[in-house]
Amino acid sequence: MVTKNQIKLVVSLKQKKYRSQHGLFVVEGEKLVDELLSAGLKPYQIFVDDAGLVQRFEQAELVSGKTLKQMSNLTHPSGILGVFRMKDSKDLDLEDWVVALDAVRDPGNMGTIIRLCDWFGIKTLVCSPDTVDCYNPKVLQATMGSIARVNIEYADLTVFLENVHRPIYGAYMEGEPVYGSNLTEKGILVMGNEANGVSDEVGKFITHKIAIPQFGAATAESLNVATATAILLNEIRRG
Amino acid sequence: MVTKNQIKLVVSLKQKKYRSQHGLFVVEGEKLVDELLSAGLKPYQIFVDDAGLVQRFEQAELVSGKTLKQMSNLTHPSGILGVFRMKDSKDLDLEDWVVALDAVRDPGNMGTIIRLCDWFGIKTLVCSPDTVDCYNPKVLQATMGSIARVNIEYADLTVFLENVHRPIYGAYMEGEPVYGSNLTEKGILVMGNEANGVSDEVGKFITHKIAIPQFGAATAESLNVATATAILLNEIRRG
Repeated sequence: MVTKNQIKLVVSLKQKKYRSQHGLFVVEGEKLVDELLSAGLKPYQIFVDDAGLVQRFEQAELVSGKTLKQMSNLTHPSGILGVFRMKDSKDLDLEDWVVALDAVRDPGNMGTIIRLCDWFGIKTLVCSPDTVDCYNPKVLQATMGSIARVNIEYADLTVFLENVHRPIYGAYMEGEPVYGSNLTEKGILVMGNEANGVSDEVGKFITHKIAIPQFGAATAESLNVATATAILLNEIRRG
Repeated sequence: MVTKNQIKLVVSLKQKKYRSQHGLFVVEGEKLVDELLSAGLKPYQIFVDDAGLVQRFEQAELVSGKTLKQMSNLTHPSGILGVFRMKDSKDLDLEDWVVALDAVRDPGNMGTIIRLCDWFGIKTLVCSPDTVDCYNPKVLQATMGSIARVNIEYADLTVFLENVHRPIYGAYMEGEPVYGSNLTEKGILVMGNEANGVSDEVGKFITHKIAIPQFGAATAESLNVATATAILLNEIRRG
């Protein structure tokens, strides 16, 4: 039997403050819960509103559709909601390329970038404290299972970059064309805020400003930060 | 004075059926209206709820905030709503690379792809009839002004591809790594549906199956169609 306090806890996890306080986060949908379990993330509690799913997820607790809706972030709950423990913080793996995000605010962009890191084998993503929380439900919906395979740390980027002693590449509209850049040396790729790009504070540490050349009219809209990250990670990996 | 019939017309344009019937579509926000005007698109009517904007947009008609809200697709209307005439159909420009979309359904993906075509100077986008309508409000919000600079045609892709006599590249999970492909010859790039990829029907015409190599764990989520388009268009243009 699910208690009022349990429901209250799950509902509270819609807020970052309580996610951090409890070290817990929520995902919804069979595929996503499945993926996090396969990736070895530890479930705290799994709620389903369908007896069939109780058998499939042995830890699952059967609740009414009404209760699930109360806990859910979705207008149309998907029938399964998993509360997971956040991954432990690891020492940053600096053996390979690292992506750093400077105030990326849009959950969809953040989710896409985590998924791209996973695809391109980037194990470490360092985010400024004003970057959107990676356990935000909309981020999780966009990352799919990738959240389990990429280490995401929030840190003061100026402190991180000052001590990293590696080439630091930043994406700038007016940077050098990336095609000519020598990206073979392992480094840090800094991507900036959707509206303002890399901040001046963080910009001081950039050793190479790079850009994706534009082939259309000069009036074309700038590329979205997730799209630009896709292209730059591909440039890094293609060699 | 705005009439009830005018309001009814604008509201009807939320539906594709009426957009096609009237050859009109709606965009919201000062920046977007501005961009379409600069790009030479013909306004049918512009509504604003702020006298200051009447001066800035000379064709604008002042309406109450309540009326604007009634016509708007947004929860928080931005104060300006433009009704524009759709662009005339042009003969397909096949002198350069062409992107073809096979049942891309998500408006955000479609909008991002149009913006990418603009950035990479792709002038022609051919879409299967079951691809999301490019005048869908969510598509327009994601394309920004790019909608004015890319020619978008809806056509039966099998007929189009059968008659095009050009190399036809398709994005497939199991395709040849794109890095080794010879993309210097101008061709068609076919991108498939979010869940199912390129359909079997369209697949018959693909002469080169290409893929973006994966560097992370084999369990990584596939790339989203907009992200994959970004990387492949960059591959085409970087040479």
